[in-house]
Amino acid sequence: MQEDANPLQSDQLYKIRHSLAHVLAQAVLEIRPDAKLAFGPPIDIGCYYDFLFSEPLTPEDFSDIEKRMRKIIKEKQTFEERKLSIKDAVTYLEEDGQNFKVEYCKELAQKGETEVGFFKNGPFEDMCRGPHLEHTGEIPPNAFKIDSLAGAYWRGDEKNPQLTRVYCLAFATKDELKDFQRRRELAKERDHRKLGKELELFTFTDSVGPGLPLWMPKGTVLREELEKFAKEMEERAGYQRVATPHIAKEELYHTSGHLPYYADTMFPPMELEGESNYYLKAMNCPHHHQIYLTRPRSYRELPLKLAEYGSCYRFEPSGTLAGLLRVRSLSMNDAHIYCSLEQLHEQLRETFQMALDYYAKFKFEGVQIRLSLHDPANKEKYVDNPEAWQFSEKVVREVIEDLGTPYIEAFGEAAFYGPKLDFQARTLMGREESISTTQLDFAQPLSFDLTYIGEDGKEHRPFIVHRAPLGTHERFLAFLIEHLGGAFPTWMAPVQVQVVPVNPSVGDYAERIVSLLRQNLFRVDCDHTDKSFNKKVREAVTQKIPNILIVGNNEAEANTVTLRRYCVKEQQNMSLDSFVARLELLRKDRIMDNFAETEIPEA
Amino acid sequence: MQEDANPLQSDQLYKIRHSLAHVLAQAVLEIRPDAKLAFGPPIDIGCYYDFLFSEPLTPEDFSDIEKRMRKIIKEKQTFEERKLSIKDAVTYLEEDGQNFKVEYCKELAQKGETEVGFFKNGPFEDMCRGPHLEHTGEIPPNAFKIDSLAGAYWRGDEKNPQLTRVYCLAFATKDELKDFQRRRELAKERDHRKLGKELELFTFTDSVGPGLPLWMPKGTVLREELEKFAKEMEERAGYQRVATPHIAKEELYHTSGHLPYYADTMFPPMELEGESNYYLKAMNCPHHHQIYLTRPRSYRELPLKLAEYGSCYRFEPSGTLAGLLRVRSLSMNDAHIYCSLEQLHEQLRETFQMALDYYAKFKFEGVQIRLSLHDPANKEKYVDNPEAWQFSEKVVREVIEDLGTPYIEAFGEAAFYGPKLDFQARTLMGREESISTTQLDFAQPLSFDLTYIGEDGKEHRPFIVHRAPLGTHERFLAFLIEHLGGAFPTWMAPVQVQVVPVNPSVGDYAERIVSLLRQNLFRVDCDHTDKSFNKKVREAVTQKIPNILIVGNNEAEANTVTLRRYCVKEQQNMSLDSFVARLELLRKDRIMDNFAETEIPEA
Repeated sequence: MQEDANPLQSDQLYKIRHSLAHVLAQAVLEIRPDAKLAFGPPIDIGCYYDFLFSEPLTPEDFSDIEKRMRKIIKEKQTFEERKLSIKDAVTYLEEDGQNFKVEYCKELAQKGETEVGFFKNGPFEDMCRGPHLEHTGEIPPNAFKIDSLAGAYWRGDEKNPQLTRVYCLAFATKDELKDFQRRRELAKERDHRKLGKELELFTFTDSVGPGLPLWMPKGTVLREELEKFAKEMEERAGYQRVATPHIAKEELYHTSGHLPYYADTMFPPMELEGESNYYLKAMNCPHHHQIYLTRPRSYRELPLKLAEYGSCYRFEPSGTLAGLLRVRSLSMNDAHIYCSLEQLHEQLRETFQMALDYYAKFKFEGVQIRLSLHDPANKEKYVDNPEAWQFSEKVVREVIEDLGTPYIEAFGEAAFYGPKLDFQARTLMGREESISTTQLDFAQPLSFDLTYIGEDGKEHRPFIVHRAPLGTHERFLAFLIEHLGGAFPTWMAPVQVQVVPVNPSVGDYAERIVSLLRQNLFRVDCDHTDKSFNKKVREAVTQKIPNILIVGNNEAEANTVTLRRYCVKEQQNMSLDSFVARLELLRKDRIMDNFAETEIPEA
Repeated sequence: MQEDANPLQSDQLYKIRHSLAHVLAQAVLEIRPDAKLAFGPPIDIGCYYDFLFSEPLTPEDFSDIEKRMRKIIKEKQTFEERKLSIKDAVTYLEEDGQNFKVEYCKELAQKGETEVGFFKNGPFEDMCRGPHLEHTGEIPPNAFKIDSLAGAYWRGDEKNPQLTRVYCLAFATKDELKDFQRRRELAKERDHRKLGKELELFTFTDSVGPGLPLWMPKGTVLREELEKFAKEMEERAGYQRVATPHIAKEELYHTSGHLPYYADTMFPPMELEGESNYYLKAMNCPHHHQIYLTRPRSYRELPLKLAEYGSCYRFEPSGTLAGLLRVRSLSMNDAHIYCSLEQLHEQLRETFQMALDYYAKFKFEGVQIRLSLHDPANKEKYVDNPEAWQFSEKVVREVIEDLGTPYIEAFGEAAFYGPKLDFQARTLMGREESISTTQLDFAQPLSFDLTYIGEDGKEHRPFIVHRAPLGTHERFLAFLIEHLGGAFPTWMAPVQVQVVPVNPSVGDYAERIVSLLRQNLFRVDCDHTDKSFNKKVREAVTQKIPNILIVGNNEAEANTVTLRRYCVKEQQNMSLDSFVARLELLRKDRIMDNFAETEIPEA
């Protein structure tokens, strides 16, 4: 079948997937001879083909179809191309009863096409632009698998007949297929929505509203541990925390330039009789600028770094909301750095280094930077200040190159007020995803008339760096839940220790451990039920609790505990004191103790 | 002059103040014979009198007037009462040209009065209901002081002529007068709005809006230290933290019963096309109930204590806003305890005890409880559930009596869903002020259909305790700023340590101290300017920094510091290590080290 040109089409894998789509259709027609064919393109995980069946297909048919496909592959059927005039093609397809293809063919004619290509292998021929392999024998016979069935409308329009889409995974080698399947299985198991429910981290309810997560106790622990970590990092780096309201008068957003242009990304106003309208804040910067403006600033105060885990509200259409990845309430690890031109290089370096330190701590893979630059020709999209653009893009590039982190440049993708920089990491599925954004801003200092008195006694404009290395709690935790599979290290874990008494006679000793740990502000639970010992341990493992303490008569007598770590088979007996010391260390140094490769130092 | 009956009028102090008002008018008339008299009542700090002057009075006249008042007192002029018919009174007052009194007299006639009283002492006579002292000699001659002038409209109506109000302080003894003046001076110096500005704790701006405080870095430290304290207290008491959005759909507030009845205390809705209206939350409970409702609950989970420092928004009319005492954005130390009937007594006891522990920690004076009960006759104002009222009021009273804290009862002041309990403490001015409110609630479990499965396998309704022992950050910090005069203990202080190098040659040693302390997450500043040593110390004292470290050559050589504590004259030399250990202790145990009486244990 004919398709639009694709940059990948000369690629061998593309040809494999494309040819496999034909083989798939050919095999399906063997068991459903009256099926009508629609489109069947290659996709990035294999290919699919859309059919109209009189007798439906079921997953039970998959192995039969796969067997037939392998037979076709074994036969090394040659792909042969021929061109037909549109008219001849329509006649040919009508004779074959392929109404969908006929319709598409006529559409091509209306667009001015005069001929179309057909590819034939064995008894099967399909209208198609190619390219294909030489013959079906070039398709690796063990690197594909029919994956699933789905409903799909002809041309994606729900007024058209509903078709059956048959998905087929296809890779260059068997190992690649297995690796893909394994990662996908992992991603499914680790889906943050699934784990969020199982581990009781967060919930959405109809009466609060879509895109507005309610953080349950265990999820709130994650938020607060993350926030505490960020707060300490920032305190050491000289940031100062502020706390600002979630609303402001309309005029603040006119000054910032968000209104009226970005009104549709904000919640609608609250209209107060006799007073200005109020808006929920969609970003923290205008509020922070207000704090900057409380009094004249001196160069001695710069860099001034105002930080806030500010909750912002953005109106995302309900159809685009997806778990924690796209929400309407965002708790942002936000800060604004006000600095002089001379300080900019060092401030950016520190900012980027802090972000990289976070990602190294969390063991994110394949971190790279995407640097978005402005398009000097596009005067409408960008603040007209050639010197500032040139200077700031140069500084950002210098800093990145010094850091040595791989980066790509995206021309014409900057914010309207300055260059933008995204930190990206790889997801379980190998996809690059943005973790955080840093923006350099030389426009808001103007619109808010921010100044400082320099060493020369004159007024200057500060630069602003907008930064949020952990992005939002919502997005970052979604990423982290999937990255860690919900098995959080001790310092973050909602329940850090689960005590499992082996029998009721050691209940008192178990409780003594619990209260000792609670006194030291560790999060600890104890299972006093009469469930079997194995069941108690199994439940603690299901809850991904990092430290399970098994407590029996021996332990009670010797004042020891038997520690079973999450997903570690060997158990370890130690004195209660050394267990507490070990916990203190895991917490204090925020050790990522659920990563198998992490050595846990002896306390 | 005639006044409404007052429960205090038989009181000696009341008579003194009332008589003094006559003496004040009499003395003023001596120097302004053509002044017209309006009203002159006793008030709780003395008395005032309103005059219409042709030649204005100024504070320079005060000592002359006081001298004349003392002369009148010395003369022991007897107060003599006589009654006149309204008609005779009007004639008499008209002859005297006292038009305001004439107007009031006619008003009394319209209300049906037939005669009015007059009191005469010496040459002065005033229409008045009494009572008065026997003679002016009974007024203590050294316990009063003319205080100030203010503008006031006749009958408080700005369409009427503007009068001059002369305030006079008056007490039973000279010491009481002095004590009042001292407290008032203190209260003025410690006004949280004044200190908030001087210490850069918080600010309000026009473009964000009235009643919406922006917490500057130093104020944010106070908020966060308070929150950390609360969090630890609550964690030890088995509370679990949650985090919920600041908005919700309209329907949530219909379920809670806040809409439509309390709509005017909420911000107006955000009207979303094609979706429900959204409201800013004015309280956290409905959101917490949503978390309770995520799954069926068992008696094993009770008491379930959900805590959140939730930011709520209430629409207070702009005229009523006052610093942090009355705001539109409130950060509440909120929690909801869901418990069974059997657990209620113990839960209330724990809740009240925690509140008392907080107030003892902060050394609040004269803490008492105000218990608000329902009025069984008022069926409209209160949920109609006689048994629940009887039971819950009994339990609350029992718990309070066990605690031994003084309490008063307020009949008919309960919330509509259950009894209410306010903790009150005394302000600098000796006023009782509410710090926090606890409410028992047996109505919301019904409206939200909250249940749990009991040990008997059947469904039961939980009780809810709404509690916020620290009230809101805004109100509590306003109280605390005034209570402590802005001199916060080390654990809370925005800047915990100020390092003062005596000369530039010890700058490096000073910086070494700074970075050691920062590494340990202490908040420390260093004054490297070339200001004089004395000026540096003075500025640190003005900023009420609890620990000032004086660092000279001796200190640098011996690796010691000289510690000067806020408002403590003796300085103390100690090793750097023991200073750090001391700080650690002050922080860890949250010692109130700015209260003179507090012994600071040796580290």
